Amino acid sequence: MKLTKEQKQEIIDQQSQENVTKRVTSPELEKILYEALPVLDHGFVRVVDYMGDDTSIVQSARVSYGKGTKKVSTDSGLIKYLMRHRHSTPFEMCEIKYHVKLPIFVARQWIRHRTANVNEYSARYSILDKEFYIPEKEHLAAQSKDNRQGRGALINGKQADEILTMLKEDAQKNYDDYEKMLNEKYDGSVIDEKKQGLARELARMNLTLNAYTQWYWKTDLLNLLNFLSLRADGHAQYEIRAYADVMTDSLKRWVPTTYEAFMDYRVGAMELSAKGKSVVKKMIKGENCKFEDSGLSKREWNELMESLGFKENLL
Amino acid sequence: MKLTKEQKQEIIDQQSQENVTKRVTSPELEKILYEALPVLDHGFVRVVDYMGDDTSIVQSARVSYGKGTKKVSTDSGLIKYLMRHRHSTPFEMCEIKYHVKLPIFVARQWIRHRTANVNEYSARYSILDKEFYIPEKEHLAAQSKDNRQGRGALINGKQADEILTMLKEDAQKNYDDYEKMLNEKYDGSVIDEKKQGLARELARMNLTLNAYTQWYWKTDLLNLLNFLSLRADGHAQYEIRAYADVMTDSLKRWVPTTYEAFMDYRVGAMELSAKGKSVVKKMIKGENCKFEDSGLSKREWNELMESLGFKENLL
Amino acid sequence: MKLTKEQKQEIIDQQSQENVTKRVTSPELEKILYEALPVLDHGFVRVVDYMGDDTSIVQSARVSYGKGTKKVSTDSGLIKYLMRHRHSTPFEMCEIKYHVKLPIFVARQWIRHRTANVNEYSARYSILDKEFYIPEKEHLAAQSKDNRQGRGALINGKQADEILTMLKEDAQKNYDDYEKMLNEKYDGSVIDEKKQGLARELARMNLTLNAYTQWYWKTDLLNLLNFLSLRADGHAQYEIRAYADVMTDSLKRWVPTTYEAFMDYRVGAMELSAKGKSVVKKMIKGENCKFEDSGLSKREWNELMESLGFKENLL
Amino acid sequence: MKLTKEQKQEIIDQQSQENVTKRVTSPELEKILYEALPVLDHGFVRVVDYMGDDTSIVQSARVSYGKGTKKVSTDSGLIKYLMRHRHSTPFEMCEIKYHVKLPIFVARQWIRHRTANVNEYSARYSILDKEFYIPEKEHLAAQSKDNRQGRGALINGKQADEILTMLKEDAQKNYDDYEKMLNEKYDGSVIDEKKQGLARELARMNLTLNAYTQWYWKTDLLNLLNFLSLRADGHAQYEIRAYADVMTDSLKRWVPTTYEAFMDYRVGAMELSAKGKSVVKKMIKGENCKFEDSGLSKREWNELMESLGFKENLL
Repeated sequence: MKLTKEQKQEIIDQQSQENVTKRVTSPELEKILYEALPVLDHGFVRVVDYMGDDTSIVQSARVSYGKGTKKVSTDSGLIKYLMRHRHSTPFEMCEIKYHVKLPIFVARQWIRHRTANVNEYSARYSILDKEFYIPEKEHLAAQSKDNRQGRGALINGKQADEILTMLKEDAQKNYDDYEKMLNEKYDGSVIDEKKQGLARELARMNLTLNAYTQWYWKTDLLNLLNFLSLRADGHAQYEIRAYADVMTDSLKRWVPTTYEAFMDYRVGAMELSAKGKSVVKKMIKGENCKFEDSGLSKREWNELMESLGFKENLL
Repeated sequence: MKLTKEQKQEIIDQQSQENVTKRVTSPELEKILYEALPVLDHGFVRVVDYMGDDTSIVQSARVSYGKGTKKVSTDSGLIKYLMRHRHSTPFEMCEIKYHVKLPIFVARQWIRHRTANVNEYSARYSILDKEFYIPEKEHLAAQSKDNRQGRGALINGKQADEILTMLKEDAQKNYDDYEKMLNEKYDGSVIDEKKQGLARELARMNLTLNAYTQWYWKTDLLNLLNFLSLRADGHAQYEIRAYADVMTDSLKRWVPTTYEAFMDYRVGAMELSAKGKSVVKKMIKGENCKFEDSGLSKREWNELMESLGFKENLL
Repeated sequence: MKLTKEQKQEIIDQQSQENVTKRVTSPELEKILYEALPVLDHGFVRVVDYMGDDTSIVQSARVSYGKGTKKVSTDSGLIKYLMRHRHSTPFEMCEIKYHVKLPIFVARQWIRHRTANVNEYSARYSILDKEFYIPEKEHLAAQSKDNRQGRGALINGKQADEILTMLKEDAQKNYDDYEKMLNEKYDGSVIDEKKQGLARELARMNLTLNAYTQWYWKTDLLNLLNFLSLRADGHAQYEIRAYADVMTDSLKRWVPTTYEAFMDYRVGAMELSAKGKSVVKKMIKGENCKFEDSGLSKREWNELMESLGFKENLL
Repeated sequence: MKLTKEQKQEIIDQQSQENVTKRVTSPELEKILYEALPVLDHGFVRVVDYMGDDTSIVQSARVSYGKGTKKVSTDSGLIKYLMRHRHSTPFEMCEIKYHVKLPIFVARQWIRHRTANVNEYSARYSILDKEFYIPEKEHLAAQSKDNRQGRGALINGKQADEILTMLKEDAQKNYDDYEKMLNEKYDGSVIDEKKQGLARELARMNLTLNAYTQWYWKTDLLNLLNFLSLRADGHAQYEIRAYADVMTDSLKRWVPTTYEAFMDYRVGAMELSAKGKSVVKKMIKGENCKFEDSGLSKREWNELMESLGFKENLL
């Protein structure tokens, strides 16, 4: 990640602010506010604003429950209770805003989370940065054989080099032609004074999906948790997971109690279907429990055994 | 509006916070933060948190437009431009949270604005306050003759007194019976030790729609503007307008530049239909412009003439 | 439930339609289309329109997965897979519209589900029906001692009679006064020709929360499932559950395969937290597993043991 | 637009359905149901399902207004009234579902409309079609000088040829390399049996933004109108407007009365700001009205004069 001089100065200016407020603050999050946390080769995540902290969740839950909530002894107990029982609205009372630089193909996955506010850099209006995502060799994996949405073994040696060369050269060539069509370089210099430039909204179509874009992305805490539980998960594509991981760190700084409850009741949790529950009950009672009688599909059986750590039962 | 000792103390505690933050602050809004601003006879509006200010809108618009935005000379010019052209997403980058005490029939109108986060006091869980909205005599209006959703002339004298007496006595009687069913007074004292109390989730159905409830209500600036343009409007019911008016004041404190643009391009604005536009064009050219040739309905014609201030043309 | 002559005729007219369409149809749902299915004492649920069926889910999933989906052998297998892995967007491709008559306090819970379209009867505009929900004696339960949101033992005998009398008389009295304020009876007849009527938007505040309202409510299948999983659940208040149960029947008619997957993976399912999973693993291995070492709260431990059916382990 | 044999057969199968239903139908829309309406060089729009028609809007409005609505004499009058006064919820009671094939850069603009349901072809899962959007020469415009988001004069001759060649060759080259990385051709044939293929989720990043994707897109009528008023507008990029235009035709078939009201009150309408209104009033009165006294910016003044057709007043 390379920031321009202007970007660096803007961050320094923002971080040097010392405003006094009656609002609650989150001291650990303040420490990294505005900082550009690097992700992938050219991307970053910056927390640029936030509203509320763990106590805001508690406060709004107490409005709902009135005097009744006094019985739950601690804030932490109440947050765990809310998380466990999926009482979701108090978590909507906190808000966070990120500035993110990310490859377009990652942005396309990300935007599918609809309950967020977004302002994206407009390639209709301005020229995109000359930066493309090129994976590290250690992430260059083959198509998985059994999971159509996943990666299998690493690709090594000469084939890996060939792939990286294609990715680099194609992105570079396409960007060069993008500039030619625009008749303008990224730095604003005109290429040929006698020519017009193609409209930006047209020229951009020549760019590749690993070109970087950037946006402001703002969401409430509940929807952030939903985003993270899907995108920091092992089934998510590595490239978006890299962002989700950095954002999970910011979650921990921002609302540490919520973070803990989230790890216990969401990230580390599993769901048992009605049929899966029957299997587990039998297993606990020490009854003989065969796949054939379970009513589960082979895939479900394997997923269940794997989640519970009984690999010896895999089919 | 009467606050309990506990509520008063909570507000004092909240207001005495002096936290240092790197976030932007809105100094005029800070001045009234947490304060209970009275509305109607027992209601209030409190701003309890916020995120962003006018500069946040500008900042995220500049991310969208990239280097291109430098041409718009001022922040104020940019905000006006965004408002005028309904470029709405930058306004979603600011967020505000209110604590509101309001009659249930007002809450039922309010909740129709879906893009907000809400935590309401639960009458399933706790006992509602013994407070009901009783209108001032000056708001006791007859059903409008020509507008089925509106109020007409004031009701005076004996009939007004009779109405107010009914409203007060019925609300009081229903609340007394609510306590009897619960076998518990609002202050928590049990009425008859030998009896059980009816479940709260059932007893509440005996309350009237002018009973007060309360909630935390959080929304982004764009949806706040939508709410205010509908609810601070003359066509809105007086009782919800009273809330919208107080909230419009908080808008002015929070984002003064946006407030101004809102007054010019939304509150004071009017829409001309395709046919209405033709009429206006003819009128400007001084051409004879008759209702019969306008293609407008009588109602539309009148609405248009009234908006433009040509009452002499009313049919 | 008593329908007016006009309502009955409207239903007969709607049901006698025989239109030809190229769209998919759901034959079992067509059988009850427009029918007023009774709920509570005066309420009803009517399915008034729908779009799509089980095959629509499959079809849109196949667009997402392209040629890859061919491997999943059956439609039913694919729907189960989608439900199990919370691949939610294909379920959004079906839509249903209900006409519902329901008490206002139920409507207030219901409306908290924001992702739906609603048109409610306007008491600002028209006079509400003279109908109130009065519970059956068998639902007149005391406040639960250990669950602040629930019901405990039944209330019997004289106290039950007293409660029912209060509910009936208060609702009746408040409606009578509502008519007096309006100076108009429900049937439209004026009470006193020399008086004006109070504006409807004001008079309505005298009504009780068990008065009936009605609305059109339209939602996609995914959000219907979310609604039903919360509102057909044992923790939901009986009065809204009564509606959810009838709607669950319509779900079964409409999309039978989805219904089955829903019962297995949502309604009958349970969630294990990270700590709960450790407990279950130990129990299966036959290891000694004590509450003290589990890291669970007493409440969590009991909930877990209850879900798994090991009541002997309750604390 | 070229459909595969399978696609053609699927459309024929869908169109040959003759189901009987009690639901309302829209005869003119039925005529084109499932048909692939061509857009751009390889794209299409297909209406694949719908719910409701003009009468559904009327029906739900009548539920809101109760007996009161009888006064509005006709369905058409009511729909116009609702549109004019932005009573939006009745328009949410109709739903439509499209199957769309579109270039990725168009999809990225389109997806910003969040209130819709989407299932997109997954390039993580399957291989994308070998089709790219190449503009017609008549759409190859230069960057506008005065509108940073728009197109100016056409680019002709040799420069146009050069641009088209770059677009074609770059897209082709990038797709060829995509296949090489996958080690698999679009038709499924393996390129080199001794090699593995790169994971699809990685290889796709080499594709250009003019590659075609496809999705199912479902929305309610209100949000369709919002989409069309923005995207069928002259300020929208030509490529998305081409889709919006075809969809506007389907709107006309589906709900002809709503379509008419939409053209009058939305598409052909204009908004007057508070200050703009003052100017218009003065102009009608024949008063001398100068830019300097108007309080408008130069840009606003010009926009106003242009909308009203007084080009002689442009600054």
